[in-house]
Amino acid sequence: MPELRKDPVAGRWVVFSPERLRRPVHIQCKPQLQAAEQENPFLSGNEAYTLPEIFAIRDPGSAPNKPGWRVRVVANLFPALRIEGELEKEAFGFYDRMNGIGAHEVIIETPDPNMALDQQPIAGIADVLRAFRSRMLDLAKDTRFRYILVFKNFGAAAGATLPHPHSQLIAMPVVPIAVKEKLKAAMQYYRWKDRNLFGDILNNERKSGDRMVYENAGFSAFCPFASRFPFELCIMPRKQSPDFSSESDHNLVLLADVLKRVLQAYRRGLSAPDYNLIIHTAPLRYPRKDYWMSIDQDFWWHIEILPRMAGMAGFEFGTGFYINPVFPEESARFLRGVKTDV
Amino acid sequence: MPELRKDPVAGRWVVFSPERLRRPVHIQCKPQLQAAEQENPFLSGNEAYTLPEIFAIRDPGSAPNKPGWRVRVVANLFPALRIEGELEKEAFGFYDRMNGIGAHEVIIETPDPNMALDQQPIAGIADVLRAFRSRMLDLAKDTRFRYILVFKNFGAAAGATLPHPHSQLIAMPVVPIAVKEKLKAAMQYYRWKDRNLFGDILNNERKSGDRMVYENAGFSAFCPFASRFPFELCIMPRKQSPDFSSESDHNLVLLADVLKRVLQAYRRGLSAPDYNLIIHTAPLRYPRKDYWMSIDQDFWWHIEILPRMAGMAGFEFGTGFYINPVFPEESARFLRGVKTDV
Repeated sequence: MPELRKDPVAGRWVVFSPERLRRPVHIQCKPQLQAAEQENPFLSGNEAYTLPEIFAIRDPGSAPNKPGWRVRVVANLFPALRIEGELEKEAFGFYDRMNGIGAHEVIIETPDPNMALDQQPIAGIADVLRAFRSRMLDLAKDTRFRYILVFKNFGAAAGATLPHPHSQLIAMPVVPIAVKEKLKAAMQYYRWKDRNLFGDILNNERKSGDRMVYENAGFSAFCPFASRFPFELCIMPRKQSPDFSSESDHNLVLLADVLKRVLQAYRRGLSAPDYNLIIHTAPLRYPRKDYWMSIDQDFWWHIEILPRMAGMAGFEFGTGFYINPVFPEESARFLRGVKTDV
Repeated sequence: MPELRKDPVAGRWVVFSPERLRRPVHIQCKPQLQAAEQENPFLSGNEAYTLPEIFAIRDPGSAPNKPGWRVRVVANLFPALRIEGELEKEAFGFYDRMNGIGAHEVIIETPDPNMALDQQPIAGIADVLRAFRSRMLDLAKDTRFRYILVFKNFGAAAGATLPHPHSQLIAMPVVPIAVKEKLKAAMQYYRWKDRNLFGDILNNERKSGDRMVYENAGFSAFCPFASRFPFELCIMPRKQSPDFSSESDHNLVLLADVLKRVLQAYRRGLSAPDYNLIIHTAPLRYPRKDYWMSIDQDFWWHIEILPRMAGMAGFEFGTGFYINPVFPEESARFLRGVKTDV
């Protein structure tokens, strides 16, 4: 059974999940290996090799767990957390722990093993985003959960173990400390300035333009002022909203357009580096009466994309200390200059 | 000129250092490549290919910047920070930045390119630790600096770019946010309990024994309760002290004994995984009058060792959320069982 344990100094929760050791690793080092067809559970026709589907976008008339899907969501065969059971939090001697209740799902982005997210048409990317939203809305109903983390690891250096295009979702009973710290910074800023911290960042970036990469009517993509990695990106909705899952279909198409633009620039300009993509959205059921009272006003959901480029990656030593050899103004100028289909 | 920039949401400082792009990368992927002899500036006889030595432990009668050294410290040829100039902090529009003043040094641990730290005799490891201490004491006199970070990246997965055994030191004008957070946790705990948080951890680990790996009269090594990585280790002095650089020669020999024991267990039991080793010590010149008043009582310097094992590494998505497939009790039992020379 997985278990969550709290670090008494850093305050972070770590998930211990022995099951994860059993999963097969199909990617080692670049160049990326493609899993053999019969070993790839995410292929169309191999639906029986995954757990039953939780959600899918399918052709009219096609049956669940059969071919005919465009996006398919299944529970992770080697889940970090377990969906069954009551949440039990307890002191463990001097320490704190809880049982590993949660959900761990895989969003299979396409039946085509060779169609990376940025290679899909905009409508296909929007389908993936709709799958994220649908799963977030559904899991938010479960009162045991406090946070839903949606992320994508692309490539071995970013932690991917299967090459077939997919994203992941983890619903967890605690709020990750990095999210808490963002919420706290946003709240303190709002109290001090009566303005939204993220809104000030977005306005500043749009006015200056030095770090902007692309924007459309709904979203802006820029390289953050204090980027940890070369070509790091932040994507923000143009209108304040704390919660990814409240975005409309129309907005998800606009977001898909931005994602296609920036990920295609990675592919064409930087030879498709490994990357992590993370959706930072508001936690579930945070008490609004005191500390987090203004989360609806002061938080602003956003996406971070962190390229993990071998040899030039910014390095970090577990101290929160990053060295980045490329200024974000340079990164942005480069990415703006890459010709893309968008 | 390097520059430090502050992330307005996360509160972390990031170093931008374009010089780092120019450094040669001699390690790509396992198996580790040895740089050709003539290309290895850390070899005995190649002293002219480094910057002049700042500190060395040498045979009697040998001349600086000539062979005859056992440990040698030089400024990094591709420094993340620059030693020259006045510290200038400024608002940059909406953001905060400062110029990249600091020191970035390389501690060459041995003239032998094939003698990893754990393969040295205990006296040799103690020499390396004495070099750390000597450089920390010297740099602490520079009033521009607020923190001295000593770390070792072993192997490409841990960020090393040269295979010759070496460690690094970075003196910086700000305290890394992860250190600040540790200090804050330690202070809050002390205020609440009138006891040292790290002392309680150490007592708890020694009493329970489940996660202990090795100890001697001066130091204890254990796998932390909420380890982020399989086989992660924490090494703590048995007696409270906030500051690594205050340790005696005698204690550094005891620490060398522990390091040899645990790093040799990594090599023999786990085929020498890549790892990061970080010394977490107290910041310099922190005001003691208010927030950090009790740092002398409440902080406790310690070492973290984070193995970066391909395929089974705990993964983190920039959210502070870690998944670790191996419980620290398992890691500790395994490491205890590896036969070593110590």
